[in-house]
Amino acid sequence: MAAAMEDSSNVSEAYPMTGGDGPNSYAKNSIRQKLVVDAAKELLTKTIKQNLDLDICLPCDTFYIADLGCSVGPNTFLSVENILEAVKFEYQSRGLSSQIPEFQAFFNDHTLNDFNMLFKSLPRNRNYYAAGVPGSFYGRLFPKVSIHFFHSSLAVHWLSRVPKDVTEKTSRAWNKGRIHYSNSGDEVVRAYQAQYSEDMECFLHARALETVHRGLVVLTLLGRHNGDSHSLGNVVVDILGSCLMDMARKGVVSEEKVDSFNIPSYCVSPQELEVIVERNGCFSIEALETLVCHFPEHGAKRSASTMRAATEGLIKQQFGEEILDELFSLYQQKIEEQISILEPKKSAIFCVVLKRKTN
Amino acid sequence: MAAAMEDSSNVSEAYPMTGGDGPNSYAKNSIRQKLVVDAAKELLTKTIKQNLDLDICLPCDTFYIADLGCSVGPNTFLSVENILEAVKFEYQSRGLSSQIPEFQAFFNDHTLNDFNMLFKSLPRNRNYYAAGVPGSFYGRLFPKVSIHFFHSSLAVHWLSRVPKDVTEKTSRAWNKGRIHYSNSGDEVVRAYQAQYSEDMECFLHARALETVHRGLVVLTLLGRHNGDSHSLGNVVVDILGSCLMDMARKGVVSEEKVDSFNIPSYCVSPQELEVIVERNGCFSIEALETLVCHFPEHGAKRSASTMRAATEGLIKQQFGEEILDELFSLYQQKIEEQISILEPKKSAIFCVVLKRKTN
Repeated sequence: MAAAMEDSSNVSEAYPMTGGDGPNSYAKNSIRQKLVVDAAKELLTKTIKQNLDLDICLPCDTFYIADLGCSVGPNTFLSVENILEAVKFEYQSRGLSSQIPEFQAFFNDHTLNDFNMLFKSLPRNRNYYAAGVPGSFYGRLFPKVSIHFFHSSLAVHWLSRVPKDVTEKTSRAWNKGRIHYSNSGDEVVRAYQAQYSEDMECFLHARALETVHRGLVVLTLLGRHNGDSHSLGNVVVDILGSCLMDMARKGVVSEEKVDSFNIPSYCVSPQELEVIVERNGCFSIEALETLVCHFPEHGAKRSASTMRAATEGLIKQQFGEEILDELFSLYQQKIEEQISILEPKKSAIFCVVLKRKTN
Repeated sequence: MAAAMEDSSNVSEAYPMTGGDGPNSYAKNSIRQKLVVDAAKELLTKTIKQNLDLDICLPCDTFYIADLGCSVGPNTFLSVENILEAVKFEYQSRGLSSQIPEFQAFFNDHTLNDFNMLFKSLPRNRNYYAAGVPGSFYGRLFPKVSIHFFHSSLAVHWLSRVPKDVTEKTSRAWNKGRIHYSNSGDEVVRAYQAQYSEDMECFLHARALETVHRGLVVLTLLGRHNGDSHSLGNVVVDILGSCLMDMARKGVVSEEKVDSFNIPSYCVSPQELEVIVERNGCFSIEALETLVCHFPEHGAKRSASTMRAATEGLIKQQFGEEILDELFSLYQQKIEEQISILEPKKSAIFCVVLKRKTN
């Protein structure tokens, strides 16, 4: 009976994407995330073809899928649909059409995620039973040995919390004048790395217990290529930080608040990830590939909307709602002045396929 | 693959209780419902002791509970806790403490239910994994043979829709000048009975597929004693109807709207219920008892709040939000004038225990 003990609500902060379906909502500003889901589809299909043992859902005869960090849709529905179709196809192509199981899909995100919006958006003609699961994926969410296929797209780069040291004035890792580790000193980088490593240990520990033996965990994540500097993929976050510093200089926000504000995200390298997975020991890495995403040029305005949908909750909590319009207008202006940074070559999106060992 | 075909969202209307935690919310106005949960606890415990085969959750080793029509809490958490404690106690008292399974609880209600509020209210120290399941319980909600214990408290007296005939001017069952069947002619009563019967057939058909063999379905329901007239348990609904007619006479609402407005609820008798369960054929009735609920005298004001929390959504949809305050103030006044009708002896609350046959 580990549920209460390992319940994640005590160990994690919540940074849900902006809810509802208004102009600044995640639902209306997640087109790039959709392109990532599209790009992952081929690998998902190949993964299921090569790695899925169809007998894993016996004797219950239901195939259980969970999407972690689902936000409010619609991308999460697309991911689940892609998985479901690929599994069904495998049954068909192996001559087992009559044995296709039923499917239940669990949509997970923080308790403060807008589940009302998610449920209202569920596709009406879906071929699965749907359930919402509130809580941090860095803790236990499901009973033991109950999920056949875990999926998560662009969510596990979010840390469970800001590393403590970077907000403490007395610490050597104090991140004064910046809101991220990407252009900061080694101490700050190490604090972020340590938090990521700890979080992923919790993540893998929980998933190892919850995944059916020979079940799959497929994660699409924002990362950085081996050997790349930390700043490469995080240019837009640095621009957001410089906007906040500008506003501090103008007295719109307090400098102290900017000093203590940090975006809790980390871009892992494949090498780092391999070490973490091996240390956990319960999963084999079946694939770890760079996803080729064809992002259209989306301009400064769209960049501002995307950034706002993802970070509005965090910023509101620290600085109040009233600064949002000014901040993102300034951000848009700065991006316009150096539009070339939006070129997609600098971001690295990986897809890793883990298979639960049977030991 | 019956999910899409049997998805309930197409066949049912939604009447969620008032969400949030404001003064008119269900969360703040469900004390009587809590007393019903308390009253059912003893029977629940006895039921589990006498009827639960502990091997039914093998080989998955997780005990799956679903509460249907859960609203926003907190009563639903109490019900789940009561079930969980009784199941654990059975393991312990049969010397199987080391084999106590993990628990997952599914909280179900209409898609428009306030799941955000429900999730925020989940007890922090719970001993189960929680999930929300949106959709009408008159359709399929779960995979086949996946739930060990279904529970529903004061929810299955709500029909899936207003019986069509009672709103049609040309029908013999047209329910002019009334908002319920309780004091209406035989044709209206028959239309409500037919709708209830049809709904419960759908309910039992879906649960029969979803319940693990030898699993239990425990329903607490508002009903009427065998032989009692339909009006006995529905006096307060009739008073609400008379308030609306008064307001129509004063021109505050249109008479036509009152004529076409009907509360979609039905109080079944034990005899009727037995017939429906036997016709379905998949469940044995292990118990069907009258619950003894000790309602405190709660006065006209509390009666108005309780009625409002349960019917506000329905009324808003038909008449608009602006009439709510006046309507329930009038209702309170009328109840005050005949306060003796609140005496609990006139209501009949039953608890029925169904066990899934193994055929």
